[in-house]
Amino acid sequence: MLLDEIGEFGLIERVRSACKSHHPAIVIGIGDDAAVFKTGPDQEVAVTTDILTEGVHFNLKYTSFDSLGWKALAVNLSDLAAMGAKPICAVVSLAPSRTWSGDQFDEFYSGLKRCGSAYGCAIAGGDLSRTPGPSFISVAAMGSVRRGRALKRSGAKPGDAICVTGELGGSRTGLEVLESGRPEQAGKSVKRFLEPVPRLDVSSWISGFRGITSMIDISDGLVSELGHLCRESATGCEIQADAVPIAEEARNWASSIGGEALDYGLYSGEEYELLFTVDSRRIDRLIAESAGLNRISVIGKMVPAVHGITLAGPGEKNNLEPSGWDHFRG
Amino acid sequence: MLLDEIGEFGLIERVRSACKSHHPAIVIGIGDDAAVFKTGPDQEVAVTTDILTEGVHFNLKYTSFDSLGWKALAVNLSDLAAMGAKPICAVVSLAPSRTWSGDQFDEFYSGLKRCGSAYGCAIAGGDLSRTPGPSFISVAAMGSVRRGRALKRSGAKPGDAICVTGELGGSRTGLEVLESGRPEQAGKSVKRFLEPVPRLDVSSWISGFRGITSMIDISDGLVSELGHLCRESATGCEIQADAVPIAEEARNWASSIGGEALDYGLYSGEEYELLFTVDSRRIDRLIAESAGLNRISVIGKMVPAVHGITLAGPGEKNNLEPSGWDHFRG
Repeated sequence: MLLDEIGEFGLIERVRSACKSHHPAIVIGIGDDAAVFKTGPDQEVAVTTDILTEGVHFNLKYTSFDSLGWKALAVNLSDLAAMGAKPICAVVSLAPSRTWSGDQFDEFYSGLKRCGSAYGCAIAGGDLSRTPGPSFISVAAMGSVRRGRALKRSGAKPGDAICVTGELGGSRTGLEVLESGRPEQAGKSVKRFLEPVPRLDVSSWISGFRGITSMIDISDGLVSELGHLCRESATGCEIQADAVPIAEEARNWASSIGGEALDYGLYSGEEYELLFTVDSRRIDRLIAESAGLNRISVIGKMVPAVHGITLAGPGEKNNLEPSGWDHFRG
Repeated sequence: MLLDEIGEFGLIERVRSACKSHHPAIVIGIGDDAAVFKTGPDQEVAVTTDILTEGVHFNLKYTSFDSLGWKALAVNLSDLAAMGAKPICAVVSLAPSRTWSGDQFDEFYSGLKRCGSAYGCAIAGGDLSRTPGPSFISVAAMGSVRRGRALKRSGAKPGDAICVTGELGGSRTGLEVLESGRPEQAGKSVKRFLEPVPRLDVSSWISGFRGITSMIDISDGLVSELGHLCRESATGCEIQADAVPIAEEARNWASSIGGEALDYGLYSGEEYELLFTVDSRRIDRLIAESAGLNRISVIGKMVPAVHGITLAGPGEKNNLEPSGWDHFRG
C-alpha cells in the first residue's frame, strides 16, 4: 500500500504504535502539539518539530527568504504556545536547493533570528545539507513548562466551552490574493500568511487560567483541529456558525469571489490562533479577565462523542467532516 | 555567490554570526556537537540535529529501511555521546519520497525504535511531509547532562594527549565493498557503515574522568575532526601515524585494492568513534582505568597553533589538510 492511500493520519497512528514506550522522563509523547519531558523535580521541557518543504509548504514565487526564515521558526513557536510552554531555543536543519545564493541564505537566517529575537528563542544549533531536490527545512523548538502544567489535546469534557483567539480566515485569504496576483486587496492577510504570529502573547495567560482543559493551535484549519481535540478527548462538539470570528479581509475577499466567508473561518489553515476548552463554570470569568487581551471568542461547546462534530447555523444543524489538510492525500 | 562557492564551513560561520545571541539559558550555542541549555539549577539539556538526504547521505540500493531508521537516530546519539550527555528523547521529521510503501514506512520506524530502545532514547514526536523530491530525514535528539559537565570542542591545550575510541576505517570500507558489489569481503564494515554504533557505552565514563579537556565524534573523518578541535581550541596537533587504530578489514581491503590503510584511518567518515583530549598528567591513569573498556588509543598530542596539524611517520613529518566532507562542495 502506498503512503497516499494510508494518509497522513493513518501514518501518524502507525508511528505512534511503532514508537510506543515507557521512558520515565516522557510526560507527553507522540500525538500532541509538542512532546514534554522531565528534566528536574519541578521542570519540564516541551519539544516540537515542523517541516517546510518547497513546493508543498512554501513557494519562493510569493515569499522572501527572510519571511521564510521567520515562518520556519514561527510555526514551531505556535506549537509551544499551544502547550503553554515558554520558548528557550531551536535547532534548524536546512537543505537549500541548488539555486540559493549566499545572500538568500543569509536572508533566511536573518528572518529566523528576527523571529527568535521577537519571542526570546535562541537559535542554538542545526545542520546543513545539500540536496538534489527542492529545499527542505526542519526546525525543532524547545520551551520550558512548569511541572504538570502543559496543556494537552486530551483534557476536554462534554459541557466545556470552546474558545478561539483572534480572527480566522486571513491566512487562506492571503494565499488566494497572492495566487490571484492581487495582494493589495488584502495586505494584512498576505502578511499573516507569509509571517504568521505565534500567540505567545496570550498562551501563558491562558495556560495559567484555572479551568482550561485542553489547547491546540490552528495549523490545519479550525474544523480539523476540533477533530483532533474531540478524538483525543473522546468527545464531540457543537459549533455556533455565527460565533466563528472571521477577519474582515476574509469576508470581503470571499464576497468578491462569490465564496462563503464561513468557509474561510472553518477551513483556513496556517492561522496559528489558539483553540482551547474551558470548564463552563469558569467561562464568564475568563471573558471578563481576558478583556484586556486580544479578542477571545466562545464558539461552541464540547458534547458527548456520540453527537460528532456539528455546526449550528440559523435554523439548522449540520455535521462537519474534520478533514484538514492531509499531506499525503492533499 | 552560490552556496557551493562558500562551502559548508563558510556557511556555518555565516549562521553562527547571524544567530549570535545572549540568551540566559544557553550554555553552549552554535558550533559544537550539540547545543546545551539550562533547565534548572543543576540540570542541563544537550540538543543536536542531523539531516539524512537521499542521494547525499544514503542510497536505498544498499540500505534497508530498518537500517536507515537506526542510522537516522544513531548519528544524533553519537553527537550526544560526544557531549557526555545521556539520551532522553528524539523528534523525527520525515519526508519520504513518493515511492515508499506503507511497509517500508513501518520498517523505517521499527529501525528508529530499535536504536532508541538500545540506548534509552524515546521517540517522543515528529512531523511528516510529502515531498516531490528525494526522501529527507531530520532527527533532533535531546539528552541530559550535569551542570557544567558537557564536553566542548574548545577546551584542549597544547601538551594534552589525543585519544580515540575503537578502530577506524571500517565505515569507508563498508561503503566501498557495497559499491564494488563485494559486501561479503568485509561484513563487519558493512554493518558498521549501515548501522553505526554511537559510543554511549564509554562516553559517560570518559566525560566523568578528571582531566578530559575536549571531545568530538568522528562523523566527517579523523583529520577533519582534529581540524575542528584545533580551530575551536586554538591549538595545533601532532599525530603519530603508527598509533592510528585501523580496523583489520580496512587494512585488508586497502591492500586488496592497492590503497593505503592509513588513509582509511585518517579520512574515513561516519565512524562515530569518540575523539578526545586529556591532560597529559592524567593519561597513564586513563589508560590503566580504561583497560576494561573497549580499546582507547593515544594517537598524538596537542601543540601550539602555529605548528598546524602534522602527521609524524617513520622518519618524516607532513602537514595534514583538515578537509573533511563538505556538503556543498562535496
